[in-house]
Amino acid sequence: MYLVNGIASTTIDVADRGFQYGDGLFETIEIFNRQAVFLEQHLQRLQTGCARLYLPTPDTKLLVSEINKVCTFAPVMGQAVVKLILTRGAGGRGYRQPDIIEPTRVISLHPFPDYPDSYPQQGVIARFCHTRLGLNPALAGIKHLNRLEQVLARAEWSDPGIQEGIMLDMNDHVIEGTMSNIFYVKNNVLYTAQLTQSGVAGVMRQIIIGLCTQNKLAVIEHHYTKADILSADEIFFSNSIMGIWPVRQIEGSPFSVGPISRQIQQWLARSKFAGVGVAA
Amino acid sequence: MYLVNGIASTTIDVADRGFQYGDGLFETIEIFNRQAVFLEQHLQRLQTGCARLYLPTPDTKLLVSEINKVCTFAPVMGQAVVKLILTRGAGGRGYRQPDIIEPTRVISLHPFPDYPDSYPQQGVIARFCHTRLGLNPALAGIKHLNRLEQVLARAEWSDPGIQEGIMLDMNDHVIEGTMSNIFYVKNNVLYTAQLTQSGVAGVMRQIIIGLCTQNKLAVIEHHYTKADILSADEIFFSNSIMGIWPVRQIEGSPFSVGPISRQIQQWLARSKFAGVGVAA
Repeated sequence: MYLVNGIASTTIDVADRGFQYGDGLFETIEIFNRQAVFLEQHLQRLQTGCARLYLPTPDTKLLVSEINKVCTFAPVMGQAVVKLILTRGAGGRGYRQPDIIEPTRVISLHPFPDYPDSYPQQGVIARFCHTRLGLNPALAGIKHLNRLEQVLARAEWSDPGIQEGIMLDMNDHVIEGTMSNIFYVKNNVLYTAQLTQSGVAGVMRQIIIGLCTQNKLAVIEHHYTKADILSADEIFFSNSIMGIWPVRQIEGSPFSVGPISRQIQQWLARSKFAGVGVAA
Repeated sequence: MYLVNGIASTTIDVADRGFQYGDGLFETIEIFNRQAVFLEQHLQRLQTGCARLYLPTPDTKLLVSEINKVCTFAPVMGQAVVKLILTRGAGGRGYRQPDIIEPTRVISLHPFPDYPDSYPQQGVIARFCHTRLGLNPALAGIKHLNRLEQVLARAEWSDPGIQEGIMLDMNDHVIEGTMSNIFYVKNNVLYTAQLTQSGVAGVMRQIIIGLCTQNKLAVIEHHYTKADILSADEIFFSNSIMGIWPVRQIEGSPFSVGPISRQIQQWLARSKFAGVGVAA
């Protein structure tokens, strides 16, 4: 089900700047029992993205009411996904934005992906992608609609035995997965990439950092390399839909699902229920 | 007028990957007397872009017939613009492309912009943009739909007395205008940016390089800086719609419209009529 500016529709204006230039943002939100999980955090990130792209601050109440509307079609006591796209709307002259921006909002409900339980439990297999993430501080961290790098990276493999690809930037720093952020543990310290030049600052990434800080587990955001991750004690991917997927193998190198990954999964499971529908 | 997959329509599928991820390409083509100018070159660049983004090679005959169809609504002996968008279509799972790609093509006719004659004749005024172009060889040169950098750069000024903004990359190299390529002349040699890490390889840029080569005027593609361009003898912008716009001022520094810019404008005017509708 799709709501385009509040109205059930499966089409958008071909002149929409989201289509013409990728001029917009999106959020991918887990739905559990018809309620949006970590909704407040998603709306907060959307607002941050709007500020950075000079988009008008969205009407949160309106977005929440439309999310709730599509959620009435989601399964009771089951999972689903809501995708929220916000663009600069139609108009303007070429790249120049219109004087009065009338954003387009698209809210859609999708089935939850059929990920096996083994992914969070026994871990997943990953590879390194050849496609690099470009360097651009103006766009770094934002979950915007310019996603060709991820599309090209994801097109590199079709083997269903590989669940995620790891992307490096142009400086050989490991940044993230094609659809996730990456954390690793070394000597009981948790590390993740600094997202000042590229990458998406995931809502789940932020929640994990918050949970660790609350629980006195230090998280260091820094620049690191392939060699650092390959010598890690534990590695995991995170996003709002997968939660936490430990890594059990990268291109033949085995990793164990370690105690810190398990601990964070437990913290997350507890906080998830506290985070259901908080902004509703 | 819009043709979406050959059918008159003002909407596209909201699930189209062009809208979801900016997963596609575009061309902006001058129409003169209902015929596409430099059409062969545009179709050639489109094919190169498709190959680089792993999109199926488009059916050129079909595209040409649809361009001709919208051109019947263009003015006789007048100018117009055709925009051609080609995306990876709908489908796939997240960033992963569908197994069978059914591209979406959107062909639309627009009025020619009301640029004053003074722009090509007396030159334009330009500024340097703060927004930088990211570095990414995988996407460099391609006229793809991920255009947030250009949107942000163009949003930096609203003064109608400034016609174009000059964009640098993260390494302080001058790359291009927000909607054009840049050439400059120094000691009778023509220079333009190397587009190996960022930028769009414009059809008009390629035509100008070809015309200069035919006429034994050397064109050097290299990395250059603000200081190089500010000490140039002549500077001009180019794209398929503006043709050549000499620069008469950048942030207070005056430039004269020089003999080499004038010469290339003449070569271009002659070749333009030869290039009308060549692939039709």
